[in-house]
Amino acid sequence: MPQALIIGAGDGLSASLARLLAREGYGVALAARNPAKLAALAAECGATTHACDAAEAGQVAALFAATGEAEVVVYNPSYRTRGPIAELDPAEVQRSLQVCAFGGFLAVREAARRMLPRGSGTILLTGASAGVKGYPLSAPFAMGKFALRGLAQSAARELHPKGVHVAHVVVDGGIRSARRPEPQQGGDTLLDPDAIAETYLHLIRQPRSAWSWEIELRPWVEKF
Amino acid sequence: MPQALIIGAGDGLSASLARLLAREGYGVALAARNPAKLAALAAECGATTHACDAAEAGQVAALFAATGEAEVVVYNPSYRTRGPIAELDPAEVQRSLQVCAFGGFLAVREAARRMLPRGSGTILLTGASAGVKGYPLSAPFAMGKFALRGLAQSAARELHPKGVHVAHVVVDGGIRSARRPEPQQGGDTLLDPDAIAETYLHLIRQPRSAWSWEIELRPWVEKF
Amino acid sequence: MPQALIIGAGDGLSASLARLLAREGYGVALAARNPAKLAALAAECGATTHACDAAEAGQVAALFAATGEAEVVVYNPSYRTRGPIAELDPAEVQRSLQVCAFGGFLAVREAARRMLPRGSGTILLTGASAGVKGYPLSAPFAMGKFALRGLAQSAARELHPKGVHVAHVVVDGGIRSARRPEPQQGGDTLLDPDAIAETYLHLIRQPRSAWSWEIELRPWVEKF
Amino acid sequence: MPQALIIGAGDGLSASLARLLAREGYGVALAARNPAKLAALAAECGATTHACDAAEAGQVAALFAATGEAEVVVYNPSYRTRGPIAELDPAEVQRSLQVCAFGGFLAVREAARRMLPRGSGTILLTGASAGVKGYPLSAPFAMGKFALRGLAQSAARELHPKGVHVAHVVVDGGIRSARRPEPQQGGDTLLDPDAIAETYLHLIRQPRSAWSWEIELRPWVEKF
Repeated sequence: MPQALIIGAGDGLSASLARLLAREGYGVALAARNPAKLAALAAECGATTHACDAAEAGQVAALFAATGEAEVVVYNPSYRTRGPIAELDPAEVQRSLQVCAFGGFLAVREAARRMLPRGSGTILLTGASAGVKGYPLSAPFAMGKFALRGLAQSAARELHPKGVHVAHVVVDGGIRSARRPEPQQGGDTLLDPDAIAETYLHLIRQPRSAWSWEIELRPWVEKF
Repeated sequence: MPQALIIGAGDGLSASLARLLAREGYGVALAARNPAKLAALAAECGATTHACDAAEAGQVAALFAATGEAEVVVYNPSYRTRGPIAELDPAEVQRSLQVCAFGGFLAVREAARRMLPRGSGTILLTGASAGVKGYPLSAPFAMGKFALRGLAQSAARELHPKGVHVAHVVVDGGIRSARRPEPQQGGDTLLDPDAIAETYLHLIRQPRSAWSWEIELRPWVEKF
Repeated sequence: MPQALIIGAGDGLSASLARLLAREGYGVALAARNPAKLAALAAECGATTHACDAAEAGQVAALFAATGEAEVVVYNPSYRTRGPIAELDPAEVQRSLQVCAFGGFLAVREAARRMLPRGSGTILLTGASAGVKGYPLSAPFAMGKFALRGLAQSAARELHPKGVHVAHVVVDGGIRSARRPEPQQGGDTLLDPDAIAETYLHLIRQPRSAWSWEIELRPWVEKF
Repeated sequence: MPQALIIGAGDGLSASLARLLAREGYGVALAARNPAKLAALAAECGATTHACDAAEAGQVAALFAATGEAEVVVYNPSYRTRGPIAELDPAEVQRSLQVCAFGGFLAVREAARRMLPRGSGTILLTGASAGVKGYPLSAPFAMGKFALRGLAQSAARELHPKGVHVAHVVVDGGIRSARRPEPQQGGDTLLDPDAIAETYLHLIRQPRSAWSWEIELRPWVEKF
């Protein structure tokens, strides 16, 4: 049974991905700082759960050691804060860089160590429109998500010719969830996490003769 | 039976698309300047064939009138020439603009006219890496493919909120074909047209809450 | 006296450029379809005027033959139309491609023919935000200006290593003119054409160890 | 006398900038972790020198307090390391993020606090081609420089409408220096730091009706 590791697992995109990958025959491991909140999802998917602060090198190494060889690694964590640049707390910038980007690096590094000897595997990094456009009043998130995109592009150029597929998904728009339901019945103005998960699965299944390193997803009505 | 219209049908990507869409239940119409060469493919797919110069407004209008309401329209034609800019024949630039871009506009216009009243449909435009990077000694192709990308982006911004999905596929690399076989057994150094077709199908199936307007595809070993 | 040729000369940016280059010691040649309207500017700058349809290869060749060796060539012509893509007249798309892009190619070709043997010269192409972002209801202009940008990038990659500097200026915003005065006293919400001209002069003066192939200019209050 | 503060002052670009700004009438302050190495340059330019670790919030705040109101702030520090992503030391990624990006944020924040009340000022951030293209074997630098570019773009969108000009300079290529002389007599294959400084000065002088938020500079022979 191929294994998939989802880092930053919550109840939105990660849950959709976990369910879809489990249905497609993957053994799923879910990692979050507080794995207690993953119990119901794990039970539903037959998944294991793991406590991990994704921005701590030692914890990430331990997570990969515990979960073994994964064919698919997904990095979802994100940290967003907003405010006038003159009034921002530097700690908020540090946190965005750590959670959005440095943790992504740790995941790519650990995944690459295991995938390169096999010459196969897929690493998926969840980005945001903030990674391609720096919005005003949002410098920390822009910095974190731009850095993640730089990581993804560098890693794709390095790892693709070695058989490891790296892709960056630019999620542009709000994601529908229990806490954030679609405001209009059938309006599809928020991204359905099940729809996002289908694109992740498509990326996983792309044969190496036709790989994408990046794809943007946004609701039909989203301005861009 | 949903209908798909493939413009610029040849024996590479178009053939893979025709076969895949036919398998997925689409009635397929194939258009090319010389439809005689499509006979075998059409027989295999149960497709109709149509003579059309894709850069002639009247012929494109007639093509859409003849093929009826299509849920999917694909525009593939391309014209490429190379040479030092000081020595290029202006007619080659004209031809690249006409075939790569103006014909794409005609297809989008006719497709939009039919899809907008229904509020649904997918238009797929086949681009190239030349549409995002202007290579030296290749000004005409750069001009044609940049223009096609500008069309795709403008059309996506206009038509997405009206329910019509427009996507631009950046094909970066050579496509495997009978005339251009893979040089290394199992090397996957050229794009497999069947693999490209799977990504087109994925774009067609994306629900409107999570649409892509662009996706890049390249072989794992392709420099970018 | 070094020579400068400005194609698409009108009363806005071209006039500011003509005045600035004349002050800086250039002999200036102005070309437009209707050169009668250039008489006052030409008198002010000691410039010659030339009738030329910038999208006609023969007329462009004659223009360059008449004006001799220019150190600086500027291409300004633009054609813009707007409307829903389903309702656009294909002739408008043709015209935008011809004026914005094909004429630019003709100018680059003729300039390159004269500059390459000398191994020096500067070619400046006036772009627009529409060349980097395809706006809705504006497909023809997006197509023309994207194509111009593809030309500029391809030409820069080809001609820079041969000593000819090519640069594309993305003018993002309205340009102040007699017909379009600044709406707020001292508001600077429209681009001052004299300010744009200073950036063109800076590009002309960049030493070859530090060339720019593109620069964006927009008013401080312009959204982007 | 207008003041300019150059952070990350060394003997290359910073020295050229210091000399040029001093000649243009600016009072110059130079900051580096080890200001002893700035003594000769400071004497030449009549500049003050300041010890500052640019990635330490407290030290940066103290630097701005000590140097007073600057019309121009330049952020130059950079940290680059290379290697296969699977073998990189996470501390190297941290350091690149801190030096390339977090320190840039601290400088922008302190500069904005002083410039916003005046409604004027220029902040210049020195980027690299690694900020727009993620090269293989160079993930840390890609992450740091992408993050800096995200900061610059976000800050430009926020601060431009308030009168503060922010620009990001993409330096693509090696910079000529005493330690790295031009390999070919008159070859101009490395960027002349005096040439780069001229473009910084041009950005400082742009009137607000025609601001650039980004400009790329590369030697004529540099591939891109």
